[in-house]
Amino acid sequence: MTTSTFGRMFSVVNFGESHGPAIGCVIDGCPPGMELSVGDIQPDLDRRKPGTSRHVTQRREPDVVQILSGVYEGRTTGTPIALLIRNEDQRSRDYEDLIDTFRPGHADYTYWRKYGLRDARGGGRSSARLTAPMVAAGAVARKWLRLHFGTTIRGHLQQLGEIEIPFEDWEEVGRNPFFAPNRSVIARLEQYMDELRKAGDSCGARVRVCAQSVPAGLGAPLAAKLDAEIAGAMMGINAVKGVEIGSGFGVVTQRGSQHSDEMTPQGFLSNHAGGTLGGISSGQDIEVSIALKPTSSIRLPRRSVNRNLQAVTVVTQGRHDPCVGIRATPIAEAMLALVLMDHALLHRGQNADVHLDVPAIPARAP
Amino acid sequence: MTTSTFGRMFSVVNFGESHGPAIGCVIDGCPPGMELSVGDIQPDLDRRKPGTSRHVTQRREPDVVQILSGVYEGRTTGTPIALLIRNEDQRSRDYEDLIDTFRPGHADYTYWRKYGLRDARGGGRSSARLTAPMVAAGAVARKWLRLHFGTTIRGHLQQLGEIEIPFEDWEEVGRNPFFAPNRSVIARLEQYMDELRKAGDSCGARVRVCAQSVPAGLGAPLAAKLDAEIAGAMMGINAVKGVEIGSGFGVVTQRGSQHSDEMTPQGFLSNHAGGTLGGISSGQDIEVSIALKPTSSIRLPRRSVNRNLQAVTVVTQGRHDPCVGIRATPIAEAMLALVLMDHALLHRGQNADVHLDVPAIPARAP
Amino acid sequence: MTTSTFGRMFSVVNFGESHGPAIGCVIDGCPPGMELSVGDIQPDLDRRKPGTSRHVTQRREPDVVQILSGVYEGRTTGTPIALLIRNEDQRSRDYEDLIDTFRPGHADYTYWRKYGLRDARGGGRSSARLTAPMVAAGAVARKWLRLHFGTTIRGHLQQLGEIEIPFEDWEEVGRNPFFAPNRSVIARLEQYMDELRKAGDSCGARVRVCAQSVPAGLGAPLAAKLDAEIAGAMMGINAVKGVEIGSGFGVVTQRGSQHSDEMTPQGFLSNHAGGTLGGISSGQDIEVSIALKPTSSIRLPRRSVNRNLQAVTVVTQGRHDPCVGIRATPIAEAMLALVLMDHALLHRGQNADVHLDVPAIPARAP
Amino acid sequence: MTTSTFGRMFSVVNFGESHGPAIGCVIDGCPPGMELSVGDIQPDLDRRKPGTSRHVTQRREPDVVQILSGVYEGRTTGTPIALLIRNEDQRSRDYEDLIDTFRPGHADYTYWRKYGLRDARGGGRSSARLTAPMVAAGAVARKWLRLHFGTTIRGHLQQLGEIEIPFEDWEEVGRNPFFAPNRSVIARLEQYMDELRKAGDSCGARVRVCAQSVPAGLGAPLAAKLDAEIAGAMMGINAVKGVEIGSGFGVVTQRGSQHSDEMTPQGFLSNHAGGTLGGISSGQDIEVSIALKPTSSIRLPRRSVNRNLQAVTVVTQGRHDPCVGIRATPIAEAMLALVLMDHALLHRGQNADVHLDVPAIPARAP
Repeated sequence: MTTSTFGRMFSVVNFGESHGPAIGCVIDGCPPGMELSVGDIQPDLDRRKPGTSRHVTQRREPDVVQILSGVYEGRTTGTPIALLIRNEDQRSRDYEDLIDTFRPGHADYTYWRKYGLRDARGGGRSSARLTAPMVAAGAVARKWLRLHFGTTIRGHLQQLGEIEIPFEDWEEVGRNPFFAPNRSVIARLEQYMDELRKAGDSCGARVRVCAQSVPAGLGAPLAAKLDAEIAGAMMGINAVKGVEIGSGFGVVTQRGSQHSDEMTPQGFLSNHAGGTLGGISSGQDIEVSIALKPTSSIRLPRRSVNRNLQAVTVVTQGRHDPCVGIRATPIAEAMLALVLMDHALLHRGQNADVHLDVPAIPARAP
Repeated sequence: MTTSTFGRMFSVVNFGESHGPAIGCVIDGCPPGMELSVGDIQPDLDRRKPGTSRHVTQRREPDVVQILSGVYEGRTTGTPIALLIRNEDQRSRDYEDLIDTFRPGHADYTYWRKYGLRDARGGGRSSARLTAPMVAAGAVARKWLRLHFGTTIRGHLQQLGEIEIPFEDWEEVGRNPFFAPNRSVIARLEQYMDELRKAGDSCGARVRVCAQSVPAGLGAPLAAKLDAEIAGAMMGINAVKGVEIGSGFGVVTQRGSQHSDEMTPQGFLSNHAGGTLGGISSGQDIEVSIALKPTSSIRLPRRSVNRNLQAVTVVTQGRHDPCVGIRATPIAEAMLALVLMDHALLHRGQNADVHLDVPAIPARAP
Repeated sequence: MTTSTFGRMFSVVNFGESHGPAIGCVIDGCPPGMELSVGDIQPDLDRRKPGTSRHVTQRREPDVVQILSGVYEGRTTGTPIALLIRNEDQRSRDYEDLIDTFRPGHADYTYWRKYGLRDARGGGRSSARLTAPMVAAGAVARKWLRLHFGTTIRGHLQQLGEIEIPFEDWEEVGRNPFFAPNRSVIARLEQYMDELRKAGDSCGARVRVCAQSVPAGLGAPLAAKLDAEIAGAMMGINAVKGVEIGSGFGVVTQRGSQHSDEMTPQGFLSNHAGGTLGGISSGQDIEVSIALKPTSSIRLPRRSVNRNLQAVTVVTQGRHDPCVGIRATPIAEAMLALVLMDHALLHRGQNADVHLDVPAIPARAP
Repeated sequence: MTTSTFGRMFSVVNFGESHGPAIGCVIDGCPPGMELSVGDIQPDLDRRKPGTSRHVTQRREPDVVQILSGVYEGRTTGTPIALLIRNEDQRSRDYEDLIDTFRPGHADYTYWRKYGLRDARGGGRSSARLTAPMVAAGAVARKWLRLHFGTTIRGHLQQLGEIEIPFEDWEEVGRNPFFAPNRSVIARLEQYMDELRKAGDSCGARVRVCAQSVPAGLGAPLAAKLDAEIAGAMMGINAVKGVEIGSGFGVVTQRGSQHSDEMTPQGFLSNHAGGTLGGISSGQDIEVSIALKPTSSIRLPRRSVNRNLQAVTVVTQGRHDPCVGIRATPIAEAMLALVLMDHALLHRGQNADVHLDVPAIPARAP
């Protein structure tokens, strides 16, 4: 069961706490023979890491990954790949005041009720820092998917607080600190964030992630539907409160004649489904959108209680992301990669003998 | 891995197809000694079953459940509980025309790509009929949760197409065929559905489901977060395209000072989180909202392809729900019950020794 | 986790009790497209079923299997295959006297301690009758293995009480009620059993099971070693107390120079390993031997206790196998088939891309 | 599925290779609040580590364990405990000659067939060195079991080659390099090993492991029987070829009137069952015996093949255990601890509400 393990066949067990000696993960089930080095993983970690602009937390973590096992002479061996990231910047004194206090909107209170104790340093196990090993594991999955199917998995910020960000082009995403796909909004985003920081407050965000060139047939009825597993993976990302596949909540006001994507020999005519039908990939783009709540760590005073259930006021100091959604893009990409990878292996385990003599319907009609 | 099994400790494996001889499930891990009879399960199945009003499919299925194992002298024994529901109304001739055609918006095409074949009768395994065993299993979970924690799990229709349904009271939900919590909108809903049926089209819906009296401490970091598992379970329900916990997509435009729920010794002051913090239940109400797409089986002509990838036009006859969202309420309740039950057992397996001498914060301040 | 589910990818969840309405199983993960009918399964069930000779229990159970799902137009669909066997001969009055008494050597006491209650009718869930669904599932696995790899899985009685049964030929196994591979010992076995029955006592047995034409590469380090999973599956069969792979306990007095099987281009020169090296199949025959304890249900008086922990004397009436080992052969074959099948799918899920341009070493040198 | 993960609720994922940078494991599911430090783990590792006498491999590995996560202020937090052991003595040049050769009796050939490549250094992943993380994890389980139930888990060498070692007392086990429970045989064992080493050969062994004060009720029908899981765990230890519970293969020639353990209010009168009935612990001692094959790495020449399937002769140099069974005792203890721990948590997860007002039968009558 292993409540820290993602995936069935390409499985990732995650360990560590925000301010412990190290965080990391063990990937089990990776196919053998794939070239793999730190160079395949570090770039994704660098995209996620803190301290890269004034709009994210100023904690300094180089997030340098080490491969401890599962790679021999530059290739995966098929045995567990252990990835280790040492924690460097452990200013835990920031948290000393909080040791007996539950911060509103944080997991402090629930961890305490569950485990009878908590690691108060930076959220301990509940810190978003623990997404780093998932990003590292996701990089391995992503490489395999790219090599096998030509799959590309990309994400971008879709909305920051009230500011919607119209999609312009993928190239721009890597050029600004917001993962925004539209150059013209960057200045507005910067100003918005600067004001927010000054106000000591935080804001929510919306992130879209999309996988292209995913083969039809991934996913399985009923407890392992591809969209269900994607939804679970996304909702498991820190701060996520909503997940949509394809048209998402837009379907409520759609008609059947409008929603269901027509097929022609030349391709699908639309993609309201977001790439899955009956929980199985259709070959269309997997389209996912997630909502991330505003950071709960803010400088404004909040009412709360302490361990003795006495009323207290909490003001969070320390170095926090005023919008956790900004750094969520590489995380969401990684989680999507992990789900797809797992299902690629599951699928061929069961269905490797299925051979159809008719080609798949193209993802979209020209 | 078992891609048809939900849950780790209270696990449910589901089997059957829409038009095969029977559907059912096996529940493994149910605690022993609980009184259980068909009378505990059948009422929930009856709420879900087809043919109860003119607004849902006219297929006639009594959905009578039999308990084949795991109950002895009226009590659960702790061993697997097999539940069987015979299929009675198997008018598969309705589907003869479709045997070589992929219906847009259905799983026909994806099943074929995955398995190399498909059961064309009523969607086979992909039919929403397969939610019946989950409802049956959910009834068992729900009873245990009620007996142990006093948990109540209830749902209602929140929106039908364009019509929003303001919450009025829970009592009304059981009195109308829409699971609508507001008597004043029933006439409008009926008229809306009648027009839709006449038009041969279908519409989407939004359903809310809520669990009260859930103890704090259920769920686990990182791969078994309670909200993540709820999201996965909900997205796995047929036709669901979006899931929200608490404020859901509303968080995008919230501020941290607004979103994070303040705590006082008298209780939480709000519930934007929807009952989970860091993936662990807080003792507040679990609040979930889901979006269901319009039925893809409509009488309006749609472009599609057949098994030889030739262009065809599809017009779906047969007896279909013009809004699958209507019957989704008991299904969503059941899925929520299953997730909570599983985590209740997981939690005490690991943490039965945790004893805090301070009471939990009340779900909401008076 | 599902403590009633065998297997990861080809998984079988088993349900039912000896004297409940039905027993059965759900197979999840079977590859699609394989021809399958009751005719593939019933023969194995018939080999296991009671009442076929005077040397086994006289309970009359036809053990007729029904396929409830997962097969469409004579082929597996890739979705769960539910198999149902109705219990017919439920003379539970035989057990009325025992309802408050724990029979020595039986699971009565342990079930009661675990669950707080027990189904006293024929051992309930702990009955060897529950091996029938495993035999049924094993027949499905066996067929797939035969079609894909030409694998044959066969077993026979190796020892009955003190009587060792030298292996003569496989053909004889199906011709006598003992699964004995040697015609010349049958008369002795019959006399032995008749005397035992007269004495009201029971005896142990040893069964060998062997799989040929198993491809190299099945199994995985470290928690899914093929031999470890075989050992687990075998020890899980009712009454089994010992398991050997290859030379088994004989290795204790072997030298390394004697045990390790030499390899030549023409084939392995011996098979002390029993077909696995490092937990992975080598292409040699999988050789397994198991020890089965004497039936605990005997007519001789035994000291025991009742539910109030008072001393009682137990004399078991009813219809019992005087040697459970006799009917164990098809069960052990089925369990071996299930483990191999599961690993065949797991292996190709992870390693489908591995292609060696050198042929495998033949199982044995000519 | 995670083929490198042992256990369902107290789960251990193992990583690393013999000559990679590090080996280790991640324990998920450990109950929170238990005091834990390196001092609880290192002693067991020291008992297993190489180089402690002339009768075992001379490789020098300090096997120093580090706790990377899951422990805060000296107590377990309930979140994953990552344990790391750096490899220090990596004389991989010993293996250069072997890079293209398959050593008989080793996993070289099977890993190559499975993965298409192999890590030739010291057996890579198939090395017995990978039992070290299991010993470390077992130490954590053992501590919890001791604190909760007073469980003690102890093992000893029962036979070395032809020399049977009559059990004398547990105290002696820790005083000699053989884990032998009998002082009078030590001189003979030393002489035997010296001769074997001179001859360049190796020998098998038999190890017994025993758990006392195990509560009744652990284990579950049918796929998670306690004895089945113990058998799987034991057969998964490197070099194990046979497993017995209780009377083991002795049951073949027993009568029912002899085997089934009588019960009295004062206690069980014998323990042929070895502590489990129907796959569930009875409260009696868990008695396990395992057979370990002679080391395949010997200095005597052996016929084999290389990667091109050409005939070669192999003579293994390097530093090897002439009897791997000697160091197996702490490993077998650890594996038994892991299985019991897992089932202790599983059991209370499902059955925490079971309360019997009658005490358990004592393990043995006075």
